[in-house]
Amino acid sequence: MKLHCESALLTDLYELTMLQAYFSRHMNETAVFEFFVRRLPERRNFLMAAGLEQVLSYLTALRFDHEDIAWLRASGKFSAAYIDSLAEFRFTGDVDAMPEGTIFFADEPILRITAPLREAQFVETRIINLLQFQTIVASKAARAVNVANGKRLVDFGLRRAHGAEAGLLSARASYLAGFDATATTLAGAMFDIPVSGTMAHSFIQAHESETDAFAGFARAFPDNATLLIDTYDTEAAAEQVVRLAQWLREEEGIRIKAVRLDSGELGTLAYRVREILDAGGCEAIGIVASGNLDEYAVQELTEGDAPIDGFGIGTRMNTSADAPFLDCAYKLVEYAGQPCRKRSLGKMTWPGSKQVYRHTTAQGILEGDVLALADEDVAGEALLKPVMRGGVLQYSPPPLSAVRAYAQEQLSRLPLALHSLEPASPYPLQVSRALQELTHQVDEIQRSRADSDKQRWGLEAG
Amino acid sequence: MKLHCESALLTDLYELTMLQAYFSRHMNETAVFEFFVRRLPERRNFLMAAGLEQVLSYLTALRFDHEDIAWLRASGKFSAAYIDSLAEFRFTGDVDAMPEGTIFFADEPILRITAPLREAQFVETRIINLLQFQTIVASKAARAVNVANGKRLVDFGLRRAHGAEAGLLSARASYLAGFDATATTLAGAMFDIPVSGTMAHSFIQAHESETDAFAGFARAFPDNATLLIDTYDTEAAAEQVVRLAQWLREEEGIRIKAVRLDSGELGTLAYRVREILDAGGCEAIGIVASGNLDEYAVQELTEGDAPIDGFGIGTRMNTSADAPFLDCAYKLVEYAGQPCRKRSLGKMTWPGSKQVYRHTTAQGILEGDVLALADEDVAGEALLKPVMRGGVLQYSPPPLSAVRAYAQEQLSRLPLALHSLEPASPYPLQVSRALQELTHQVDEIQRSRADSDKQRWGLEAG
Repeated sequence: MKLHCESALLTDLYELTMLQAYFSRHMNETAVFEFFVRRLPERRNFLMAAGLEQVLSYLTALRFDHEDIAWLRASGKFSAAYIDSLAEFRFTGDVDAMPEGTIFFADEPILRITAPLREAQFVETRIINLLQFQTIVASKAARAVNVANGKRLVDFGLRRAHGAEAGLLSARASYLAGFDATATTLAGAMFDIPVSGTMAHSFIQAHESETDAFAGFARAFPDNATLLIDTYDTEAAAEQVVRLAQWLREEEGIRIKAVRLDSGELGTLAYRVREILDAGGCEAIGIVASGNLDEYAVQELTEGDAPIDGFGIGTRMNTSADAPFLDCAYKLVEYAGQPCRKRSLGKMTWPGSKQVYRHTTAQGILEGDVLALADEDVAGEALLKPVMRGGVLQYSPPPLSAVRAYAQEQLSRLPLALHSLEPASPYPLQVSRALQELTHQVDEIQRSRADSDKQRWGLEAG
Repeated sequence: MKLHCESALLTDLYELTMLQAYFSRHMNETAVFEFFVRRLPERRNFLMAAGLEQVLSYLTALRFDHEDIAWLRASGKFSAAYIDSLAEFRFTGDVDAMPEGTIFFADEPILRITAPLREAQFVETRIINLLQFQTIVASKAARAVNVANGKRLVDFGLRRAHGAEAGLLSARASYLAGFDATATTLAGAMFDIPVSGTMAHSFIQAHESETDAFAGFARAFPDNATLLIDTYDTEAAAEQVVRLAQWLREEEGIRIKAVRLDSGELGTLAYRVREILDAGGCEAIGIVASGNLDEYAVQELTEGDAPIDGFGIGTRMNTSADAPFLDCAYKLVEYAGQPCRKRSLGKMTWPGSKQVYRHTTAQGILEGDVLALADEDVAGEALLKPVMRGGVLQYSPPPLSAVRAYAQEQLSRLPLALHSLEPASPYPLQVSRALQELTHQVDEIQRSRADSDKQRWGLEAG
């Protein structure tokens, strides 16, 4: 049986049960769903949208293949007529979305789907799965970029990412947000991200001596070797690097590029190692730091002017360890022309098909957003752009390097207070008068429907 | 270009750079690497091993295909001879491992690879990626199982899992640890896990009234409908369910199975809803709770005797939100017959090929483990079992249901204190005398090698 991550069965079973109920009731009018974040994590002043390209690929490729259909049939959970209908199931709807790299805030939809109800409902699970993960990683990576002072940042996180796709997509999201490279080879191949790699402690240990290991590696990569110097004694290793570098340069024309520190007090060690290297005439050898880093550690090291030229950042960024998920949702806001909303405690939503308008200062700095109805006439830049119509892409997704450049431009327009790693006052979001009025109307209509529903069943109207 | 999660390029670039250095130096003696966890997360008293089956599949299938080779060649980073050699690269080594579902603790290897250096080194990244993620999820899920009092637990977490593979593997790991089902359809199809699904709020909202939605869903699933009742007003919805259930039972022979609460004070609401259902003769309708749950919430609700029959647990479990990564490593412990170890600050390792021996009480309760050399004669059960020899599986991986039964048996043998969600005294791990002695010897040898290395380079011996 060929089952893989691209299978249409990569979804919550309830999407399929709801579709069966819609199928048997012939319900398939146009629905509008929006993806948004209810609240920012405590330690985030802004979010950066990411994952749209994968969502669009998913929507374009979506179909139930032979094996999917066979499994559904064998499960005994669904009617034969419904399962037959799935063979023809395609996404034929519209998508409006913020471009990847756009800065956004709570309650702002970053993606809106307008499609026949069954299609718009079915894609919920994978859309959330793709958007929330890349968005949390891009948002955290952007914070590291904001405090790195232009120093080189490399994604080191595949090994402790949550599976293969998490490793690949976090490499993509962090590069998009401004990282310079990834250690994940396949992410380099798939997304055209520069790849970077050095050596592990095991490489040192497999050799008779540390110097043998250094020399062997430098000979294999004559102008590009980064040597890991903390396996036994960091300062002693730095001394050896000085001698070795001189020898290799003079005898074999080989240049050592950098050394890497992966444990201990990185700031203090970097000073000592820099002194040793400089005293030995190795001013050109850089220092790279890694090991348990995140944006807080990068800020501390850059603010302390530690002589570190680049950072390898892994686990904590790839898992967004201090905020490993977003309080996000993909909610129905309109069906068959009727706006609707959910009123569950703590999870209320704004009804109707919406748009986000952004106001900026004369210098282009973000000043405040307005959440409005999609068909309202509101000043400012409309952030949700049409990207798919009738199931057909309306543009060629830009290369990742262009998305990255756009993300950098977005970060340059972020108010300074929001750049801080510490919580800042929330960015102003205004809700348009028309949207507020619609919300009251929807509540009234839902109340009166609920009352007539109760009367029908002999209950007391509330 | 066909690039996918099974590509051999799903690895850190440094594995490939190290291999090139080994290749050019003809280094490929037998190496022993071990995967272990350095420290348990603060809120874990034990861990449960998971992910071995995926590791073994990876090792069996590992090869560089045409596209991988083409990309490596085009990258310009490696020698032609080395790239050519990768076409024949296979894993031909031995694997010893704790069976999935085994309880383990800090410093205990759960997997040991004995293979030619290049093979043993290369597989590092994906082995860590597979073992750490499933292990953190199984370990957290086991905590929920420990406090659920036998109530039904269903994995709801695909949408906020970190990508597709995380959703699939966390469904597998939670089922392995004792969950009863998953909402992730594809995980059901791939791993033969029971699947479970209800409806979303959007289903209610797309209908003219809540009762219409309930009736439509119940008719589509005549003996299996779980109705979501918190979209507008939970208690009012429960009243409607009572009337509707009676009508459907009498007029159409349809039975409603359960209602689901997804917001608000779940314990209090469950009491009120139970009262309403019972007063209306609906004692047979169950109550399922979901929304932001983890093992702490499950414990609180079961200790409070909330009338909840099952829990849908998502995000916090699938991301292991309170401990989204493990401080784990895959370390070289022996090369060419020579034991070795890393001495980096805070990251020291025990040298040599090792085994873990477990002592139990007469009742089978875990009493303490011994970390020893693999060839030592130590009492107790040896936890690392031979699973692969010369690249060939030594057994048929058991069906997941059998792994799950073994995991339950393991949990039943865990000392009660370690069942607690609160931190307990660490489980006793003794280090054998022979291993301690070897560690001193290795340090001595490394020190004297470092000294002669320094003398060679004209540095002062330390």
